[in-house]
Amino acid sequence: MIVLYDIPSTAPGVAWSPNVWKTRYSLNYKGILYRTEWVEYPDIEATCKRIGAPYTEKREDGTPLYTLPAIHDPSTGVSLADSVLIAEYLDATYPDTPKLLPPGSRTIQHAFLAAYRLMLPALWQFALPGTLPILNPPSEAYFRRTKFGPMIPNVAPTGDLRQEQWAKLKDDFGLLAGWLDKGEADGPYILGDSASFLDFAVAGYIIWLRIIWGEGSMEWSDIKRWHNGRWDAFLKRLEKYETVV
Amino acid sequence: MIVLYDIPSTAPGVAWSPNVWKTRYSLNYKGILYRTEWVEYPDIEATCKRIGAPYTEKREDGTPLYTLPAIHDPSTGVSLADSVLIAEYLDATYPDTPKLLPPGSRTIQHAFLAAYRLMLPALWQFALPGTLPILNPPSEAYFRRTKFGPMIPNVAPTGDLRQEQWAKLKDDFGLLAGWLDKGEADGPYILGDSASFLDFAVAGYIIWLRIIWGEGSMEWSDIKRWHNGRWDAFLKRLEKYETVV
Repeated sequence: MIVLYDIPSTAPGVAWSPNVWKTRYSLNYKGILYRTEWVEYPDIEATCKRIGAPYTEKREDGTPLYTLPAIHDPSTGVSLADSVLIAEYLDATYPDTPKLLPPGSRTIQHAFLAAYRLMLPALWQFALPGTLPILNPPSEAYFRRTKFGPMIPNVAPTGDLRQEQWAKLKDDFGLLAGWLDKGEADGPYILGDSASFLDFAVAGYIIWLRIIWGEGSMEWSDIKRWHNGRWDAFLKRLEKYETVV
Repeated sequence: MIVLYDIPSTAPGVAWSPNVWKTRYSLNYKGILYRTEWVEYPDIEATCKRIGAPYTEKREDGTPLYTLPAIHDPSTGVSLADSVLIAEYLDATYPDTPKLLPPGSRTIQHAFLAAYRLMLPALWQFALPGTLPILNPPSEAYFRRTKFGPMIPNVAPTGDLRQEQWAKLKDDFGLLAGWLDKGEADGPYILGDSASFLDFAVAGYIIWLRIIWGEGSMEWSDIKRWHNGRWDAFLKRLEKYETVV
């Protein structure tokens, strides 16, 4: 049984990390058996080294940065980090399961993933400070030390700046809504009739917002109203792949 | 017969504009009969108004900006500007011709187009000044007045800065190369086995560089060597749709 490594929280359901959600959605969609192992931030590096999952990035000082999601697949002996690489691995290793990155769209899927991250510049100033209250103490301290800086303070904007930046966030999502509108005639999912990794990549960020603020929060209630309710509907369409095991 | 409105130059073949190339490739690929009408920059607005092609953007001061490519299709009476809108129009109006934006990929195609523009930030400082020498005097004066500013001077970088920014441009293309590598197993084109608007959007920029500097230039010779010669090969693969009529 595959082991999925994820970062715990105090939120209902425990899972919250947008990047790990991409892999959880992927595994659930494929119907591959797996279990979750919860790893606090300070233990990620040692865990990845122990299972043999390579680092995914380098810090500015050149030292390797180990990140989750990571998986260990005992049936092949493979350990791997990075949600896109994991998606490619699962498609190749389990060819009888639904494709996450169907042939003929791989180039633009990678471009979409790059574009999408750039397209939500206003997200981080809200979502990163919003994550602090749901983390357990060791992860909270680590997150506070590593995720903030001059560009992203560890408290979300308040007052007029909040209004202005919240409107900016809505506009960023509006750009994505425009792309989704272009494909609407092809089917309910980004690639048309079937879900794919791209839907999970988008959903990973939206579910993160729902989790950090909570279903009944003012923030989530507002987002639910944006763009004719499409973001809540987006998650609802993928709800069957939301199970945390 | 459709009329394609394009901006002339003194370069061999006359055509140069990357955005109009997208539409020329599109028309040639579909095998739709058309002829080109050449319009100098200062006459674009009057031409678009005369044929009834809407403006495509607004300037910072709120006034409408008319751009090429534009087409007039006498068989339907439609006049239209913007290469993507034209592609959508041609797909819808000529359903028996090869699709530029095949169903199931429209959302990510639009995302790719947005990503792609963002992904070449180092391009403009070279390509915009490089265009000046091939324009006819009325377009040259207009281009000089409207395309440059504090961010993009009307001369390309020289000396050490040139070296550095040229390396940056290569890196930008490298990012695109990485995406193309991801899809390579699916076929020679971005969407796999068939060309699509995306190939023409990428080719429009590459052919622009070949045209402004010329086949034998140092700049083009260098670009030809980048990333295992893939950019020259990219154009070669689409050469049959390069005809200027």
